[in-house]
Amino acid sequence: MNPSIDKAKVLQEALPYIREFHGKVFVVKIGGSVMIEENLREAFAKDVVLLRYVGINVVVVHGGGPQISRVLERFGIRPRFLAGVRKTDEETMQVVEMVLSGDINKDIVALINRFSGENIYAVGLSGRDGRLLKARKIDKKVYFSKIGLPPPGEDVGLVGEVEEVNTDLIVSLLEGGYIPVIAPVGVGEEGEAYNINADFVASSIASSLKAEKLIFLTDTEGVKDLRGRLIPTLTEEKARELIKEGVIREGMVPKVVAGLEALEGGVRKVHIVDGRIPHSVLVEVFTEEGIGTEILQRT
Amino acid sequence: MNPSIDKAKVLQEALPYIREFHGKVFVVKIGGSVMIEENLREAFAKDVVLLRYVGINVVVVHGGGPQISRVLERFGIRPRFLAGVRKTDEETMQVVEMVLSGDINKDIVALINRFSGENIYAVGLSGRDGRLLKARKIDKKVYFSKIGLPPPGEDVGLVGEVEEVNTDLIVSLLEGGYIPVIAPVGVGEEGEAYNINADFVASSIASSLKAEKLIFLTDTEGVKDLRGRLIPTLTEEKARELIKEGVIREGMVPKVVAGLEALEGGVRKVHIVDGRIPHSVLVEVFTEEGIGTEILQRT
Amino acid sequence: MNPSIDKAKVLQEALPYIREFHGKVFVVKIGGSVMIEENLREAFAKDVVLLRYVGINVVVVHGGGPQISRVLERFGIRPRFLAGVRKTDEETMQVVEMVLSGDINKDIVALINRFSGENIYAVGLSGRDGRLLKARKIDKKVYFSKIGLPPPGEDVGLVGEVEEVNTDLIVSLLEGGYIPVIAPVGVGEEGEAYNINADFVASSIASSLKAEKLIFLTDTEGVKDLRGRLIPTLTEEKARELIKEGVIREGMVPKVVAGLEALEGGVRKVHIVDGRIPHSVLVEVFTEEGIGTEILQRT
Amino acid sequence: MNPSIDKAKVLQEALPYIREFHGKVFVVKIGGSVMIEENLREAFAKDVVLLRYVGINVVVVHGGGPQISRVLERFGIRPRFLAGVRKTDEETMQVVEMVLSGDINKDIVALINRFSGENIYAVGLSGRDGRLLKARKIDKKVYFSKIGLPPPGEDVGLVGEVEEVNTDLIVSLLEGGYIPVIAPVGVGEEGEAYNINADFVASSIASSLKAEKLIFLTDTEGVKDLRGRLIPTLTEEKARELIKEGVIREGMVPKVVAGLEALEGGVRKVHIVDGRIPHSVLVEVFTEEGIGTEILQRT
Amino acid sequence: MNPSIDKAKVLQEALPYIREFHGKVFVVKIGGSVMIEENLREAFAKDVVLLRYVGINVVVVHGGGPQISRVLERFGIRPRFLAGVRKTDEETMQVVEMVLSGDINKDIVALINRFSGENIYAVGLSGRDGRLLKARKIDKKVYFSKIGLPPPGEDVGLVGEVEEVNTDLIVSLLEGGYIPVIAPVGVGEEGEAYNINADFVASSIASSLKAEKLIFLTDTEGVKDLRGRLIPTLTEEKARELIKEGVIREGMVPKVVAGLEALEGGVRKVHIVDGRIPHSVLVEVFTEEGIGTEILQRT
Amino acid sequence: MNPSIDKAKVLQEALPYIREFHGKVFVVKIGGSVMIEENLREAFAKDVVLLRYVGINVVVVHGGGPQISRVLERFGIRPRFLAGVRKTDEETMQVVEMVLSGDINKDIVALINRFSGENIYAVGLSGRDGRLLKARKIDKKVYFSKIGLPPPGEDVGLVGEVEEVNTDLIVSLLEGGYIPVIAPVGVGEEGEAYNINADFVASSIASSLKAEKLIFLTDTEGVKDLRGRLIPTLTEEKARELIKEGVIREGMVPKVVAGLEALEGGVRKVHIVDGRIPHSVLVEVFTEEGIGTEILQRT
Repeated sequence: MNPSIDKAKVLQEALPYIREFHGKVFVVKIGGSVMIEENLREAFAKDVVLLRYVGINVVVVHGGGPQISRVLERFGIRPRFLAGVRKTDEETMQVVEMVLSGDINKDIVALINRFSGENIYAVGLSGRDGRLLKARKIDKKVYFSKIGLPPPGEDVGLVGEVEEVNTDLIVSLLEGGYIPVIAPVGVGEEGEAYNINADFVASSIASSLKAEKLIFLTDTEGVKDLRGRLIPTLTEEKARELIKEGVIREGMVPKVVAGLEALEGGVRKVHIVDGRIPHSVLVEVFTEEGIGTEILQRT
Repeated sequence: MNPSIDKAKVLQEALPYIREFHGKVFVVKIGGSVMIEENLREAFAKDVVLLRYVGINVVVVHGGGPQISRVLERFGIRPRFLAGVRKTDEETMQVVEMVLSGDINKDIVALINRFSGENIYAVGLSGRDGRLLKARKIDKKVYFSKIGLPPPGEDVGLVGEVEEVNTDLIVSLLEGGYIPVIAPVGVGEEGEAYNINADFVASSIASSLKAEKLIFLTDTEGVKDLRGRLIPTLTEEKARELIKEGVIREGMVPKVVAGLEALEGGVRKVHIVDGRIPHSVLVEVFTEEGIGTEILQRT
Repeated sequence: MNPSIDKAKVLQEALPYIREFHGKVFVVKIGGSVMIEENLREAFAKDVVLLRYVGINVVVVHGGGPQISRVLERFGIRPRFLAGVRKTDEETMQVVEMVLSGDINKDIVALINRFSGENIYAVGLSGRDGRLLKARKIDKKVYFSKIGLPPPGEDVGLVGEVEEVNTDLIVSLLEGGYIPVIAPVGVGEEGEAYNINADFVASSIASSLKAEKLIFLTDTEGVKDLRGRLIPTLTEEKARELIKEGVIREGMVPKVVAGLEALEGGVRKVHIVDGRIPHSVLVEVFTEEGIGTEILQRT
Repeated sequence: MNPSIDKAKVLQEALPYIREFHGKVFVVKIGGSVMIEENLREAFAKDVVLLRYVGINVVVVHGGGPQISRVLERFGIRPRFLAGVRKTDEETMQVVEMVLSGDINKDIVALINRFSGENIYAVGLSGRDGRLLKARKIDKKVYFSKIGLPPPGEDVGLVGEVEEVNTDLIVSLLEGGYIPVIAPVGVGEEGEAYNINADFVASSIASSLKAEKLIFLTDTEGVKDLRGRLIPTLTEEKARELIKEGVIREGMVPKVVAGLEALEGGVRKVHIVDGRIPHSVLVEVFTEEGIGTEILQRT
Repeated sequence: MNPSIDKAKVLQEALPYIREFHGKVFVVKIGGSVMIEENLREAFAKDVVLLRYVGINVVVVHGGGPQISRVLERFGIRPRFLAGVRKTDEETMQVVEMVLSGDINKDIVALINRFSGENIYAVGLSGRDGRLLKARKIDKKVYFSKIGLPPPGEDVGLVGEVEEVNTDLIVSLLEGGYIPVIAPVGVGEEGEAYNINADFVASSIASSLKAEKLIFLTDTEGVKDLRGRLIPTLTEEKARELIKEGVIREGMVPKVVAGLEALEGGVRKVHIVDGRIPHSVLVEVFTEEGIGTEILQRT
Repeated sequence: MNPSIDKAKVLQEALPYIREFHGKVFVVKIGGSVMIEENLREAFAKDVVLLRYVGINVVVVHGGGPQISRVLERFGIRPRFLAGVRKTDEETMQVVEMVLSGDINKDIVALINRFSGENIYAVGLSGRDGRLLKARKIDKKVYFSKIGLPPPGEDVGLVGEVEEVNTDLIVSLLEGGYIPVIAPVGVGEEGEAYNINADFVASSIASSLKAEKLIFLTDTEGVKDLRGRLIPTLTEEKARELIKEGVIREGMVPKVVAGLEALEGGVRKVHIVDGRIPHSVLVEVFTEEGIGTEILQRT
C-alpha cells in the first residue's frame, strides 16, 4: 500500500492531542547535556517549532552547567560546588551569565530559528530582560532542606530563587507568535544577577502561566523505582514518599521537587522525559505510549 | 526501535509543509460520490479538522448530484440533463436547494464537528446566506462552449454562474476559527436561487480569497493521458491542449476549466485528487509524493 | 396640511421606542403558517430589516410544520403525531432537516435579503452549524407534562430539547451586522440531528442572549379568556393558572410555556402577536397600542 | 382599520431611505431664527436624535445673529454691519463667542439631550476646542466678491474663514455615538477667536467629512425663481446663473455659495429647507416629496 | 561648568515623579483670579501641557466668579450673594453659563492649545455637554451646613450640586490624548442648567475618576494655622478640626471640604497650591519641596 | 527666589522639544568605553528612561570592543585586528557573542531597569533573537573602501554586515512600552553568528525604523576641523569632503559613514555626542545649546 497513506494515518493519530492542547501553554526545560549531540539538538528544535505551529504556546527554559564549568576553567577559575550547588561569587556570576545568556541561549534561539518560518521566531531572554525573573538570594536552610541535602557551612554566593515572574513580556511574545527561550538568571532589587537552578525557573514560569504541561528533558530514562525500573506514572504522594525514602535521589530530586511545586501552582501535568531519544517531546505529547515519567495532580 | 519515535519522525516530515501553508487559504471541493462511504467521509472530515488546527484556513465546497436525483425520483420528478447540465425548473430548484443546503451541507457540517474541538466548528452556508454567491442565469452559448459541449436547444432553467463572491462573511468566519462549508446555490437580484456547478463555485471562491490551493476531491485518479496513464503535473498550456484534443473529457472538463480559471484568478496551485483513497487530502498537502494531478500557474 | 409632515410625526412617535430598544436583542419566532401569504411575508421581512437598522439585534427562529408534512407525503411517508408531537424516525428526520434548513430557512433568508442593504444581511443557520443548539432526546414524561398532555405510549423518535445554546456564533454574527435566521434542528453528542419545537428553541436562544423581547408571530389574535376575549397583558401567575384551568390550550400551550421559561431565563417581555396582521411586529414594538398578548416578568 | 397598522406602514416607507443613509454623515446647519419657537426647536431636536438612532452620523452647526445683537445692545455696544457682515472688534468678538459657545450652543446641546438616551449624547464644541476650525482673517476682496457684494471701505475686524477642519475630534465623537454641535468660532495661529459665517462653517465641515448631505434649515421656503415660485431642484450651473442674475439675493447668497463649495468639496447633495415647518428635516430625508430646494452635483 | 548640564540634571530630578505619576489622573482646579495675570496664565497652560506630555491624564476645572459679576453688571444686573453663594435666577444663570462656557472656558482652551502640539489638544466642555455633570438643586440645609454657614432665608435659585459624573466622555477624550477643560455648569433632568461651586465639581470629577491628585490653584499660600503660618501637610482629622475651630474659614472652607470629599471618594492626595507663583503646579508635582498645603488620606 | 521655581522653569524649557519629539523614534548607540565610569553609566540609563517617559521610542545599540579583548585574553586568545577590524574566527566569535549578548547587553538592561518603573522595561536582544539582524559576511573590497582603508590581505573571518532588519519585534516591543537594547551580532542564513560594527548596526536599525534621530555616544567631543576645533553642524557634502581630505579619520570614519547612510535611509538627524559629559543625551535633545556635532540631511 501507498506509504504516504500510512504517513497520513500517523498524522491523524495526532489529531486528538492537537485538539486537546491547542492554545495551551507548555514549558519545556532542556538540560545542558541534551544540547550536545547535533542530531538530538535538531530533533528538539524541530519539535518545539512543530508544537508552535499546531497552536501550542511553547516556552523553553535551558540550563548550562557543563558549559559554564568549561569556560570557568579557561578563565582559570576552579568551579566549586557546595552540596551540588555552584558556589557563585561575583566573577563566577559574570561567567555564568555570559555563558547562559550569551552563548547557550543564543545558540538555542538560532537553532530553533533555522527550522521555523515567517512570524514564528524564537527570542532569547534572561531573567534580567524586562525584569522577567525577580529573584532574591536563597534562604540556605529552606533551600537545601527542599532538595533534601544538609546546608553547606560556606556561603553559596549569588545563588537565587524566583520571587515573582513578570508574565507580561512572555505573554505578549507568545501572542505575537514568538517562542521565548529563557536563561535561568534572576534579577535582584538593585539589578544584580542571580544564578538560579533551571528546573526551579521552569517550574516558576509554568506555575505563573498556569501551563498545561511542564516537560523536563533529561539525560535519564525518567524516575526509577528501587529495582531500577522506570515508573511511568507517579502521584504527588508517591513522589514525596520516594524522595523521603531516598529512591529518588541526586539530580533527580530538584526536578521532582520543582515538578511538585508546579503541580501545586496549577500546572496540569509534569513529565520527566529522556532527551537522549530523538523527538522525545513529540512522542510524549502526540502519541498514546508516552515516554519517561509523568507526575499527576492530586485529584 | 520504539514505534512511537517513528511516528514522531513522520510528524516531523510534515513540518516544512505546515510552515509553508500556515495562515494560507485552501478551498476543498468534495464531490457527492466521495461522501458516500463512511470511512472515507470520516477520513475527509478529520483531514479538514487537522488542516484547521495547523493554521490553514480551510473552506469546503460540496456538490450533490446523485443525492438530488434520488430525491427528485421520490418526488416523482424525472431528473433530466441537457449536455450534462441538470434541467432546473422551479420545482427542481426547490428540491436541489433542499438536498444541498438542508441535507448534504448539514451532514458534512455535523461530520466535521464530530472531530473538531472547542472554538473550531464547521458552519454551513448556501450562497443565499449573506448574499454570499451573487449569481445570474448562465449565458448558454458561453457556458457550454467553456465546457466544450454544443449548447442544448432547450432552456436549462435556473442554472446559474457566480457573478461575485461576498467574501466578508467567509473571512469573518475564518478569522473566528470556523470552517465554512458551502452549498453551490447562488442568489439572483430578486433573491431567487440558482443551481450552480460546484466546481465553478469552488473556483470562484478560491479566486476571490486568493487561495493557496484549490483541491478537487473526485472519484478518479486524476487527469490521464491518451494512454490512460496519470499525469502528475500539468501546466496551463498543456491542460488547454489536452481539452482541445479531447484527451480530457466528460466530467473532468469542468474541473480542469474551473481549475484554470482559479489559476488566472490568482490561486497558486490546483489539485485534482482521488477521494477514494483515505486521507488523500493530507497525503497531497503534507507529503512529498503528492497524489493525483496538480495544475500549475504559468511562470 | 402637508401629508409628509404627518408622516414625519408618525416617525417621531417611534423615537421613544427606538431609544429604549437600541442595542437590545429581540428574538422573533415565526410560525410556518405566517410564511405563506406573500404580502405578509414581505411585511415581516421588511419589519425585521427595519428593526436591525434602528439598532436592534434581531434573531429570527422559524418553524415549518405544514411544509414538512407536505414533503413527507410526496415522499410517500405518512406524517404521524403523538400528542401533538411529530413522530420522527430517521427518515422523517432527514426530511425535517431538508425542509427546515434547506427550504424554509433559505427562503426566509432570501426574503429578508431582498429588503436589506449593504452589510446588513440575513444568514441562515441550523442548530448543527457551529454546534449552535446542543440537544438531547426529550425526556418523554417531563416534556409532555410540561405541555400539559399525557405522554404517548409510543416512542416519539428523534424529538429533542435544547441542552445548551452556543451563543458565540450568534453574537459574532450580530456584531458583524448580520441577522441570524435559525432552523429548529438540534445536534446531539454524535452529531445526530434532533427535531425540536421551534417555540422552545426561540425561548432557549432568547434566554441565553438575555433578550429584551421574545415575540411569537402566530396565526391567532393572542391568548384569550374563557369567553374568547383577547387578554392584552398576562402575568406569569395568571398564565400558569389559565393553563391549569385549560383556558389556554392546544397549540397555545407550548408558546405560553416557552414564554414563561424565557421570562425565568431573564428575558424582559414575551409577546404573542397576530402574524396575520401586516407589520404586526412593528405595531407591537413601535406603537403605544400594542397588539396581541404580552406576558410580563414577575416584579 | 387599525390606525397602528397605518403607522407601521409609514415607518416602513422610511426603510429605503434609512438603508441608503445608514452610516453616512449629514451636516445640518440651523439658523438662529429657527431656534426661537419652542415647538420648532423640539421638533428639530427630536429629528436630529432620530437620525442618529437610525445610524446617520449627524453634525449640527448653528448660527446666532439675532441673539448676539441683543446681548451687544444690553452691553451698550451698537451692532454694526458692513455689507451684511458684522463688524467684529475685540470686545464684540468676546460677546460673539460668549453668546455662540456659551449660550446658544449649550442650549441646543441640552435640548437634544432631553430627547436622546443612553450613549447618544450631544456635545457642544466651538472651533477653538481641539483647534477644530483653524481660521484666518478673511481676504476682504475675495470674500465679498464671493458673496456678491462690494467690499466695504472699513475694516471688518475679526471676521474669519476656515482654513482647515481638524476632523479627528469630530470623527472620534461620531464613532463614540455622540452628536457634535458646533459654534461658528474659528481659531487663529495665536489662539485668537474669529467670527465666521455659520453657513460657510457648515460647508467646510461637510466637505472635510465628505458628507452625504448638507442641510440648511432656514426661515424661508427655499430658493425661488424670478416670479417667486419655489425651485425644488437646482443644478450647480443654474444656481450660479441665478446668483449672477440677482434672482438669488441677500441672505440666500451665502447659503447657495456655501452649498456650491460643499458640492465641489465632495458633498453629495445640498438642501435648503424651511425650518418653520415642524420636522422638516425628517420630511426632507425620509419621504419622497422632499421639501425646499435641493442643489445637485454636476454629473 | 556647562549650564546645559545643570539643566539636564534638573530634568533628571523630575524622573522619579514622572515615573510615579505616568498614566495617572490629575484634576486641576483653577480659580478665576489666577487666570488674570498674563504670565501666570501662560505658565499654568504650559504646565498642563507638560503634564500631558509626560503621560499624566490632566483634567482642568475652572471657576469664574469675578468675570461673571463684571458681565452681570454690564447687563445691569446687580450680583447678589447669600452666605457666599451667588443668588442665581434664570437670567443670572444664562449670564453665568455664557461667561463660564463661552468666555472663560474657551479662553483657557485656546491658551493651552497655544502651547500644545499635534494630537494633544484641549477641549472645552460644560456639564451640559454629553450630560457630563448630572445635577440637582442643592438641599439648602445640607449644603450650607457642609460649608459651615447658616443657610440664608432666601431661595438661592439655580444653585446645584453634582449627582453623578458621566465619566465616559472624559475618559474617551483622555484616551484620545485630549485635555478636557470643564466649566462648572450642571444639567438637570429637564436639561436646565445649574450653577455649581467649581471646587465641588473638581472634587466630584476627581472622585469618579479615582484621581491620583486633586490640585486647587488658589490666590493664597495654602491653609494657615492660627498664627497665620502655612501648614504644609494636613491629615483629614486635623482638617476637620481646624474647620470646626474656625481656623480654616471663608473661601478656604469649600476647598478643604471638597478636598476631604475627594479623599473619601478615593483620590490619593489633595493639594492647595498658590497659583500666584509661576509654575506652581510643576513645583508641586515634580520637586521634593512641594508648595502650599497637602491633605492626606487617613491611613 | 524659590529654587524650585527655577527648576520648574528649566522643565518648561524642555517643553518645545518634548512636543516635537513625542512619538518619534531615537536610536542611541553607546560605545564600550562610555559604559565604564559608574556615574556616566547611570546618567546614561536615566536619560534613556526619561526619554521613554516623555513619549520618545528609544532603541539602544551597544558595542563592546575593549571588554571582548579582555575576555579573549583571559581565554588565551590574542585579539587581532586587520585594518581596524577584529579578525573573527569561530572561537573568537563565540567569545564576542558571550561578551556582547551575555555580559554587556544584560548589564545595560539591568542598569536601565534600575531607573525605570512599572511597564517601562528594557529588554536585551541580539540580532539572532527573532532573526532581528539578517546578515552576511562583508564584501571585503566594498567594506574597507567604505571606511576608507585598504582591504587587508588576510580573511577577516565572521565579520558581517546587515542585510535586513526585521522590525516587527522591535516595533512590537516599543508599542508595549519596552526599551529594546540590541547587541551587534547578526544572523546568517544557517543561523550562524556574525560580528558586526555597532555603528553600522545602529544606522541600519535607525534607517529601517525611519528614526527621527540617530545619536552616537562617543569618547570624543565630536567631529573636529583641521585645527582641532569642534564642528557643531555638518552637511552631508561637507562630511564626505572631510573624510576624503582625511580630516575625519580613524574611529570617527565609521561613525560618520554610518551616519551618512542613516540620513540616506530617511533618518532626520545624526548626532555625534560626547559621552564623557554626564547627561549629554538630554543636553543634546532638550536644550538649545546642543553638544557635539550634528549631521543634517541635504535639503
